[in-house]
Amino acid sequence: MKVVIVGGVAGGASAAARIRRLDENAQIIVFERTGYISYANCGLPYYVGGVITDENQLTLQTPGSFWDRFRVDMRVRHEVTAIDTEKKIVTVCGLDTGKTYEESYDKLILSPGAKPTQPNMPGIDSDKIFTLRTVEDTLKVHKFISAEKPKTATVIGGGFIGIEMAENLAELGLKVSLIEYADHLLAPLDFDMACAVHAQMESHGIRLMLNTAVTGFETKENTTVTKTAGGCEIASDIVLLSIGVTPDTALAKEAGLELGLKGSILVNDKMETSAQDVYAVGDAVEIRHFVTGKKALISLAGPANKQGRIAADNICGGNSVYRGSQGSSVIKVFDMTAASTGINEAAAKAAEIDYERVVLSPASHAGYYPGGKVMTMKVLYEKKTLKLLGAQIVGFDGVDKRIDVLATAIRAGMKATALADLDLAYAPPYSSAKDPVNMAGFMIENIVTEKVKQFHHDEVDALPRDGSVTLLDSRTPMEYAGGHADGFMNIPVDDLRERLSEIPKNKPVYVMCQSGLRSYLACRILSQNGYNCYNFSGGYRFYNLVKQ
Amino acid sequence: MKVVIVGGVAGGASAAARIRRLDENAQIIVFERTGYISYANCGLPYYVGGVITDENQLTLQTPGSFWDRFRVDMRVRHEVTAIDTEKKIVTVCGLDTGKTYEESYDKLILSPGAKPTQPNMPGIDSDKIFTLRTVEDTLKVHKFISAEKPKTATVIGGGFIGIEMAENLAELGLKVSLIEYADHLLAPLDFDMACAVHAQMESHGIRLMLNTAVTGFETKENTTVTKTAGGCEIASDIVLLSIGVTPDTALAKEAGLELGLKGSILVNDKMETSAQDVYAVGDAVEIRHFVTGKKALISLAGPANKQGRIAADNICGGNSVYRGSQGSSVIKVFDMTAASTGINEAAAKAAEIDYERVVLSPASHAGYYPGGKVMTMKVLYEKKTLKLLGAQIVGFDGVDKRIDVLATAIRAGMKATALADLDLAYAPPYSSAKDPVNMAGFMIENIVTEKVKQFHHDEVDALPRDGSVTLLDSRTPMEYAGGHADGFMNIPVDDLRERLSEIPKNKPVYVMCQSGLRSYLACRILSQNGYNCYNFSGGYRFYNLVKQ
Ligand SMILES: Cc1cc2nc3c(=O)[nH]c(=O)nc-3n(C[C@H](O)[C@H](O)[C@H](O)COP(=O)(O)OP(=O)(O)OC[C@H]3O[C@@H](n4cnc5c(N)ncnc54)[C@H](O)[C@@H]3O)c2cc1C
Ligand SMILES: Cc1cc2nc3c(=O)[nH]c(=O)nc-3n(C[C@H](O)[C@H](O)[C@H](O)COP(=O)(O)OP(=O)(O)OC[C@H]3O[C@@H](n4cnc5c(N)ncnc54)[C@H](O)[C@@H]3O)c2cc1C
Ligand SMILES: CC(C)(COP(=O)(O)OP(=O)(O)OC[C@H]1O[C@@H](n2cnc3c(N)ncnc32)[C@H](O)[C@@H]1OP(=O)(O)O)[C@@H](O)C(=O)NCCC(=O)NCCS
Ligand SMILES: CC(C)(COP(=O)(O)OP(=O)(O)OC[C@H]1O[C@@H](n2cnc3c(N)ncnc32)[C@H](O)[C@@H]1OP(=O)(O)O)[C@@H](O)C(=O)NCCC(=O)NCCS
Repeated sequence: MKVVIVGGVAGGASAAARIRRLDENAQIIVFERTGYISYANCGLPYYVGGVITDENQLTLQTPGSFWDRFRVDMRVRHEVTAIDTEKKIVTVCGLDTGKTYEESYDKLILSPGAKPTQPNMPGIDSDKIFTLRTVEDTLKVHKFISAEKPKTATVIGGGFIGIEMAENLAELGLKVSLIEYADHLLAPLDFDMACAVHAQMESHGIRLMLNTAVTGFETKENTTVTKTAGGCEIASDIVLLSIGVTPDTALAKEAGLELGLKGSILVNDKMETSAQDVYAVGDAVEIRHFVTGKKALISLAGPANKQGRIAADNICGGNSVYRGSQGSSVIKVFDMTAASTGINEAAAKAAEIDYERVVLSPASHAGYYPGGKVMTMKVLYEKKTLKLLGAQIVGFDGVDKRIDVLATAIRAGMKATALADLDLAYAPPYSSAKDPVNMAGFMIENIVTEKVKQFHHDEVDALPRDGSVTLLDSRTPMEYAGGHADGFMNIPVDDLRERLSEIPKNKPVYVMCQSGLRSYLACRILSQNGYNCYNFSGGYRFYNLVKQ
Repeated sequence: MKVVIVGGVAGGASAAARIRRLDENAQIIVFERTGYISYANCGLPYYVGGVITDENQLTLQTPGSFWDRFRVDMRVRHEVTAIDTEKKIVTVCGLDTGKTYEESYDKLILSPGAKPTQPNMPGIDSDKIFTLRTVEDTLKVHKFISAEKPKTATVIGGGFIGIEMAENLAELGLKVSLIEYADHLLAPLDFDMACAVHAQMESHGIRLMLNTAVTGFETKENTTVTKTAGGCEIASDIVLLSIGVTPDTALAKEAGLELGLKGSILVNDKMETSAQDVYAVGDAVEIRHFVTGKKALISLAGPANKQGRIAADNICGGNSVYRGSQGSSVIKVFDMTAASTGINEAAAKAAEIDYERVVLSPASHAGYYPGGKVMTMKVLYEKKTLKLLGAQIVGFDGVDKRIDVLATAIRAGMKATALADLDLAYAPPYSSAKDPVNMAGFMIENIVTEKVKQFHHDEVDALPRDGSVTLLDSRTPMEYAGGHADGFMNIPVDDLRERLSEIPKNKPVYVMCQSGLRSYLACRILSQNGYNCYNFSGGYRFYNLVKQ
């Protein structure tokens, strides 16, 4: 069997290694356009920032080591330019020689990845505007910074790569502006959850420009001026463009493979394309979203690696299936961590799912043990079925742990209320006896069993301030004095039972506290005393973050 | 409704708070023998060690604050001395007044916890032998240390509390000996996994005495001499006894409640005891093990808190059930973390479950990003059903995360092979594209689909060294020279294909490398070349840890 693979990184190299493990006799040739295989895409921003200092660390394997271990013929700087799926032949161009030749295959795997989205804009061709995808890209940025010593940077696009680049450039001492078209950074998060990330970026000196469309660039003296639709001009010494990625599928398209979203390659759950004996994996393919069952593009390394392994299995006579991605992701934002899994509210709305959510602010570990940090956690579930839909967490410690627990619960098809039962490991340095994930389960149970009703931050402004409802802040007078939502009166929860007479019985009561816990207690007191009341989800802490 | 609760800490206080939330009108009285409620048992060792410096941090609530918030009548220094389940009355002794009175109940919850096991031994009554359960115990130890400035300590028992105390005393500068009856510390771990903990303890200056039975104590001058069955005498200035806990159920027994293992209270899944309207929760009750379905005692705070909440629900007309504990636990051992969930090999054998296990040494995060640490992970599953049975992890980073993911997978009833599919969050500072838990799933899949067979450390010594089998070390010559298992010859995996002729075809081959990965690759090469071969589980790294 002769296997040809296009792309020698996450999906392609993983497939090659697995095929060799399954079949000592296969002939395996991998074509890779860049000069490197098995490189750590995800580490590239950290090489720019000097966190990773050794260039060799960026590649997990070289063509030589891959040959020694796997007897895979890794041809770097070779681009596959055409596929003949009838004749089962690819056309290859040796980029150093310029020579073109053909290579036949029995099985073909495409793992060409995705390329940085390149908008068609005036001035985009400037040599001071960079993108980051390959090792070469990274070395170029690195060299530019060493040579030109830029003082200011503009990063365009606030996704994972944009934020990581902004952080790394800021850590190098550059003054960074980050421009984002949407109203918030990190699309996998909802706006309200991203607010803490915004604050974090700004507190590290990054100038955020949200809701801002870039229209073009102009070189002025030694700087590049980024122009926005609002008429702003941001001059900087270096520009980093990271407005998303597009499946790198011109080759697949020309070969006549069936395509999906954004030109991605259509595959079935065995990673087979529409052409006989042609498989595709990674950023280039359209997958099913594990939660919604709908078509999706998810450009992450975990799925790419797993899909490569699955394609390899099937090529070698196995029967492996890919059950979809749920987009679990995590990012370091200076000392903060932001993570998500499944779908967010925006996606739930788009999919017309009738969902509910809880927002809580648990500590990463027991309060009496030093070093715990408060995180903000949002968990979404479908109202009718209690199916877990997704979760988002932002915080400074233990965030990645809870997102992976929630990702596992989602994968297992657990009901949202089952989070209350999870038997998680507790000792004071690591968690609380009621882990944050359990706590989310308790809260969901209380909503489902109608022990409490909620209201949310986007409903606060619309609440009448004409006395027709009672707005109640159940924190201490000191906390209240330190800041509260407009129109809310203060009765501390501990005094509520004695002061019930101050609250009119026949009007709905909307209660807020710092985190949502004391207002929940207040709601329990109120509702058992005949009040119709609502607990503010996330507390004043969250409200304040979102409103700022 | 009048609810009486015995014990005002994890189970009892949680039940009291939840009952109040569910029922504003219930009269709730909690009797607590010590002077404190809602105390952080789990934090006590860290107060001794000076990590927690403020005594007030040890209690999450006081009787006053509990009254203010929950209108619960918390009677500290009140011991319940008898229960009349017919008349529904408890007898209470006020420990400060010495006066006894009766209190009636409609519903009774017992959450008396477990007490340190106290062996009947000569000299045990010395005032320099301490146990740790209550705040009072802790203050006593603390005071003794401040006043007497002990230089040496003997800790008896290598469970959670023993290890935490040994660590905290060592951090205070004491020279600590730790005596354990069994062959290894931390019973939830298997011997092989505990070996790394042993090395860690010893590297922090703790003298470990395993397989050692204490027979008694003697006071000599100002020191306490601990005597062992082997005739050793260990003199020290302070002795800490932590050989396990026993359900504190004399009260329940006298009241005629049905008892289970070790005198624990029998309850059904609604936390009801054999007596009408009497519930019991926490360390005092026998539960079903979630994995084996068998009776078990599991003394952990998470289960106690959850059971308290469930009893409260049921008392207030709800219908909550406890689905069993799986014993998820975690402990800090200086800068190391050891964690487990489900059952270990010893328990699987005792339950006569036909299991298999994988052992791996993944890094806590991507190798190219600084700061990753290697952990050792063992995952057990039932051979026939592929049911996940348990996991153990020892390492320095990311251990608690992976154990909670595995705990969740176990809870969800996932098959062991499904670990390969988990969609976990990856960025270089947090994990690898193939998370350690995915990796365990891949390895299990390879065993289940018979791509590789394993052999284990307890089989190595018995392998013939007479040439009837080939023992092969597939690491580099340098690694091999640095130490290898007796009788193993060296062919690096990368040279294996060329040097196959050196390995006799008709004999089984046992292959070892550093972690198990390269020997797996070697096995794949060998088996496809017609060899019958076995991969050493866990690698030389693990072998070496266990054999030392
Ligand atoms: C800067 C950066 C940071 C990232 N951080 C994270 C992260 O933290 N977590 C995470 O999960 N994911 C991250 N990702 C995404 C992750 O790297 C990708 O999802 C993953 O690499 C996709 O694997 P792939 O095999 O599909 O494509 P790639 O890994 O991109 O490999 C595709 C390769 O194919 C080559 N190729 C394309 N066309 C041809 C052709 N015609 N002929 C020959 N070769 C060709 C390309 O040169 C490329 O090297 C990051 C990506 C980048 C760029
Ligand atoms: C030092 C230490 C460290 C620990 N570390 C951890 C850890 O890291 N992680 C973990 O999960 N678990 C840990 N635990 C275990 C955890 O604390 C227990 O599992 C949990 O507290 C059990 O809750 P409970 O309500 O059953 O009993 P307890 O919390 O022990 O409460 C029982 C209370 O009942 C009182 N009482 C008993 N009988 C009577 C009576 N007749 N009348 C009145 N009062 C009575 C007792 O005085 C006691 O205060 C630790 C325990 C200790 C002692
Ligand atoms: C380097 C690379 C080729 C490695 O591929 P790989 O050999 O499949 O992966 P690993 O080295 O992690 O090894 C995994 C294999 O070892 C096995 N394994 C791991 N530890 C083991 C152990 N202790 N004992 C036995 N087997 C073990 C696994 O089961 C798996 O084998 P399988 O797929 O046949 O089941 C590929 O991951 C790559 O190119 N990565 C860099 C690119 C990339 O991922 N970029 C994006 C993220 S930055
Ligand atoms: C202090 C103690 C009484 C608290 O009990 P508690 O009130 O049940 O627990 P918490 O303060 O964690 O609050 C949990 C409740 O708040 C709710 N909650 C938490 N955060 C919330 C939020 N943001 N919004 C709404 N509700 C929230 C939960 O749903 C839960 O309520 P429920 O049980 O009615 O569903 C009890 O935990 C205790 O005594 N602990 C110390 C003893 C101990 O556990 N020792 C062993 C470990 S060291």
